[in-house]
Amino acid sequence: MKPTRIIIDTDPGVDDALAFLFALSSSKISLEALTTTQGNVTVDKATRNALAILELAGAGHIPVARGNMLPLVQPLRASALVHGESGVGNANLPEPKNRPVGLHAVDFLIEKILAEPGQISIFPIGPLTNIAMAIRKEPRFASAVKELVIMGGAIREGGNMSPLAEFNIYVDPHAAHIVFHSGIPITLIPLDVTHQCILKQEHIDRLLKIKSPVSKFISDAMHDYMAFSLEIGQAGCVLHDPLTLAALLAPELLTLREYYVDVDISGGVSMGNTFADFSNVSKKPVNMKVAVDVRGDDFVELFLTHMETLGRSIQDRTK
Amino acid sequence: MKPTRIIIDTDPGVDDALAFLFALSSSKISLEALTTTQGNVTVDKATRNALAILELAGAGHIPVARGNMLPLVQPLRASALVHGESGVGNANLPEPKNRPVGLHAVDFLIEKILAEPGQISIFPIGPLTNIAMAIRKEPRFASAVKELVIMGGAIREGGNMSPLAEFNIYVDPHAAHIVFHSGIPITLIPLDVTHQCILKQEHIDRLLKIKSPVSKFISDAMHDYMAFSLEIGQAGCVLHDPLTLAALLAPELLTLREYYVDVDISGGVSMGNTFADFSNVSKKPVNMKVAVDVRGDDFVELFLTHMETLGRSIQDRTK
Amino acid sequence: MKPTRIIIDTDPGVDDALAFLFALSSSKISLEALTTTQGNVTVDKATRNALAILELAGAGHIPVARGNMLPLVQPLRASALVHGESGVGNANLPEPKNRPVGLHAVDFLIEKILAEPGQISIFPIGPLTNIAMAIRKEPRFASAVKELVIMGGAIREGGNMSPLAEFNIYVDPHAAHIVFHSGIPITLIPLDVTHQCILKQEHIDRLLKIKSPVSKFISDAMHDYMAFSLEIGQAGCVLHDPLTLAALLAPELLTLREYYVDVDISGGVSMGNTFADFSNVSKKPVNMKVAVDVRGDDFVELFLTHMETLGRSIQDRTK
Amino acid sequence: MKPTRIIIDTDPGVDDALAFLFALSSSKISLEALTTTQGNVTVDKATRNALAILELAGAGHIPVARGNMLPLVQPLRASALVHGESGVGNANLPEPKNRPVGLHAVDFLIEKILAEPGQISIFPIGPLTNIAMAIRKEPRFASAVKELVIMGGAIREGGNMSPLAEFNIYVDPHAAHIVFHSGIPITLIPLDVTHQCILKQEHIDRLLKIKSPVSKFISDAMHDYMAFSLEIGQAGCVLHDPLTLAALLAPELLTLREYYVDVDISGGVSMGNTFADFSNVSKKPVNMKVAVDVRGDDFVELFLTHMETLGRSIQDRTK
Repeated sequence: MKPTRIIIDTDPGVDDALAFLFALSSSKISLEALTTTQGNVTVDKATRNALAILELAGAGHIPVARGNMLPLVQPLRASALVHGESGVGNANLPEPKNRPVGLHAVDFLIEKILAEPGQISIFPIGPLTNIAMAIRKEPRFASAVKELVIMGGAIREGGNMSPLAEFNIYVDPHAAHIVFHSGIPITLIPLDVTHQCILKQEHIDRLLKIKSPVSKFISDAMHDYMAFSLEIGQAGCVLHDPLTLAALLAPELLTLREYYVDVDISGGVSMGNTFADFSNVSKKPVNMKVAVDVRGDDFVELFLTHMETLGRSIQDRTK
Repeated sequence: MKPTRIIIDTDPGVDDALAFLFALSSSKISLEALTTTQGNVTVDKATRNALAILELAGAGHIPVARGNMLPLVQPLRASALVHGESGVGNANLPEPKNRPVGLHAVDFLIEKILAEPGQISIFPIGPLTNIAMAIRKEPRFASAVKELVIMGGAIREGGNMSPLAEFNIYVDPHAAHIVFHSGIPITLIPLDVTHQCILKQEHIDRLLKIKSPVSKFISDAMHDYMAFSLEIGQAGCVLHDPLTLAALLAPELLTLREYYVDVDISGGVSMGNTFADFSNVSKKPVNMKVAVDVRGDDFVELFLTHMETLGRSIQDRTK
Repeated sequence: MKPTRIIIDTDPGVDDALAFLFALSSSKISLEALTTTQGNVTVDKATRNALAILELAGAGHIPVARGNMLPLVQPLRASALVHGESGVGNANLPEPKNRPVGLHAVDFLIEKILAEPGQISIFPIGPLTNIAMAIRKEPRFASAVKELVIMGGAIREGGNMSPLAEFNIYVDPHAAHIVFHSGIPITLIPLDVTHQCILKQEHIDRLLKIKSPVSKFISDAMHDYMAFSLEIGQAGCVLHDPLTLAALLAPELLTLREYYVDVDISGGVSMGNTFADFSNVSKKPVNMKVAVDVRGDDFVELFLTHMETLGRSIQDRTK
Repeated sequence: MKPTRIIIDTDPGVDDALAFLFALSSSKISLEALTTTQGNVTVDKATRNALAILELAGAGHIPVARGNMLPLVQPLRASALVHGESGVGNANLPEPKNRPVGLHAVDFLIEKILAEPGQISIFPIGPLTNIAMAIRKEPRFASAVKELVIMGGAIREGGNMSPLAEFNIYVDPHAAHIVFHSGIPITLIPLDVTHQCILKQEHIDRLLKIKSPVSKFISDAMHDYMAFSLEIGQAGCVLHDPLTLAALLAPELLTLREYYVDVDISGGVSMGNTFADFSNVSKKPVNMKVAVDVRGDDFVELFLTHMETLGRSIQDRTK
């Protein structure tokens, strides 16, 4: 069976990095490119981190395209608190050897997607600015994307930036509004399910048994994130971004429901709220599948196994 | 043990009527008065229905005070669809013999509550206009109310008037905003739990075995509501308003959580959304207890038993 | 000719005080009562000031009814900056001998207006909370008020609390929304015209030539307001509230236009904006007359002449 | 003196067409390109009209770049009512011989502006979607644009799409928000001044005395616009878009004031309102010059003289 071809649109970010590694670890996935955006960090740091992590994982051949520096309408809010000043915690990544491609991420996405309509899925795991701009700039873009698997939003669950808004949507709610109403097939991976996938210190210790730059990177990158997570009362680090890939690698772990989902852009207390019309009160057509449940422990085990395999293979390669 | 003294603020409405009967059926509750508001029906019909139902139940001595004719800021939206033109479905209630008291509901509430501070709880089961106006008109009102047990809102559940807004809050969100921020101790009974308390045709048939005007009223009142409920895919009629009384009669059936809850009054797609800050992202202090779960079947059984007892007693009385 | 009977609803406030004095100075006006609200000062101070100013002017027989302590939905914002801690600048008013009437301002207004429908006009020169609550509490109130002459809003002019919002409307925009849509005949006196009516130091000096408690009060009350006004670049103190009375005393000084006027209550940057539909783009019916121009110097002269007359009469009376 | 180099961003549109002709008629202006957007018409028609009008005026060498098909966040609202189905009224323009350039308008603008920073001004006379996307896509764009002269908004004047919103801003308020806060030097030409520049039938008759395709085009294009304008009570057609060029050709006709101007994007009744902070209540820095007055008759005369000159030159050229 041919691997599924994906582009990850990303603002790495610790858990973004884990998502790349997860994608690279599977033969079912062909990671075609990374496109970067601001969010957890500035787009400059996001681009540097994207290049460096790919190189760390021996995947320096995968192109990286640099994207938007600012959200569409809202002001910039990079959050150094969770992801550290660099965006990858304490991981002391070497300066990348490669450079991003010459094209802006928006144009890169348009070119790649239009070249092979219906062939490539996009996994946006940061704010949706690049995707929204590609939709608006190129009217044929929306119908040529195979699928979007988005980490973002909070449906029945509360938000993490306001009582209602999750970070990625909060940072650029207007972009989310454009994307949600674009007609592209969407699978949404909201906080409701990511919060059930917790990486604990014991899991990191298990990975460290393999002597690999991958294990070391994960441990270093997660160090402060782990401390922060424990401090706010979580049992460990939430695997937000890697969980998107469960939609490809282990769809049986996710329970999906079809809903009409909208996002509040009115600027009041509900700004950035992603809400589903559970009972179709609004009579509007379904516009996405929403992950409403996940077998979290099974997912964490799947993730760990993949990281162990990747760790061993990187170990070998660098001998 | 002395019965708990309550006033029900109400827009009867089929399930409002059931709440009165439920309150009257228990020796643990002293129903001191009804205050009326618009909502399911106009305030004129609400007042007439309140008087007539009390008389039907042999409780014509309980005072009824007529309240606001309009929501605070929003335009009027009476919903004849669910509750019938009269507000009590097919029940052909005789014209009441009594009249409402001379005082406006707002002044009646203020007078009753200030006369015995901390002694009386209010159960608002319609839009919150009266309570909000009492709070604003009399600054000492809020601290003199013992407790509010409010039927309203939708927390993790969706709304029934919009994807986010429940009817009572949707009709007067500004009133809800005033009430939620008033400092009065609140227990909120939202759609999340009322939707688990379903009265089915078999339950009505069971009540009809007792020859009583109460059974007949319930059956007639519910007739169209039942048809409407089945049509929209529910298993029967939702006992929204009666469930508030579980907070007094069987608190063990309800699971309560303390949250900061706010309501959106910005006028956009989220207008009337009641939302809880589950993880205290906003760092605001708890302002209410929210019912998050209920043993629905046990509640329906409790309700039926009470209605049977009430039915038998009314039967006796009219011999 | 019989004098026009008016009630002033007020939050005194320096220029509110001048409006009372202006009303008392004319035989064309019968000032029937003052009703107080929060705004420039708390309702407690507003009530005390209202009583004291009436007594100063030998009008202690005019009833004062104490009104709302808070805006309808918005939080309290008393502005000590302009009107001084007491609300009447440096004027050291003696403690009033009289007490407010027993009725709440809302009930007082309802009682007075319904007793003689169509006979009494109300001049609201503070936030519109009392008027809005009277409209909502008593459905017959709106059609029984003869007219409202409101100091509030900014039409083509900018606001003084935000780029769009004038103080009285900003403090309680929801109340303004209720009033504007109530159907009561309204004349609006916005910043556009009040800013053309400037009391200068030379005017105060002229008044001081009459030895009267009235002149002394005006001079003391205006002292800090004058300093503040000069500091923000105005030529003197704006006679906001007194200008409402020009609608009765010298209507020829005002240019009025009929418009549909609405107020923004959406909570965004335009919160409290009062806007006219100049070209009837919305096709909504006219709901008020708006003062769009005024012969400002003539108005100031009229005001001064009246204050001189009043000053002399008070002087006489106290001999 | 070297001519000022400009790009017009446009949705032709009858008065857009007049703006091109006006620009072409003056030796003080070098029209470097047109970029098209949706607004008065779809972007397809806008592009076709732009090409055809340039060819009509013998300026087929000027490049046209096709831009956005949709507003950023709002849904499409093309208004056939005013500008006719084709966008240029009854003018039966031949199919253009030229094609738009290969680049998207957003990229064309970025390339042109960055190639010669500080050298080229842009005159957006339609919705601001292209300019906003260029600002967001290329962070260096804003500081490289010499100036924006925007036809849009209504300051003290009312709107033409809602009581507060002018068409260009109403169609894409989010784009206006991005542009207004971009730091680019802006001169705003709002309805306040354009409504003073009225082209009457007698003016068209005067132009028709010159036998030129230009005169004929103007007459045909204006035919229905004139009828529509008279019907809604105007004395003739408003020269909205041509007036922007007065900023270059006859700045002495315009009175400009510096203000902080913002646009409401909250989605309520004020959506699309452009408002100036006249008294700097918000303490925010000036972000544009706003035309607050114009010598309208002088401008119309200037426009007519230029059209006569252009008409004669086109006449000559085609002999």
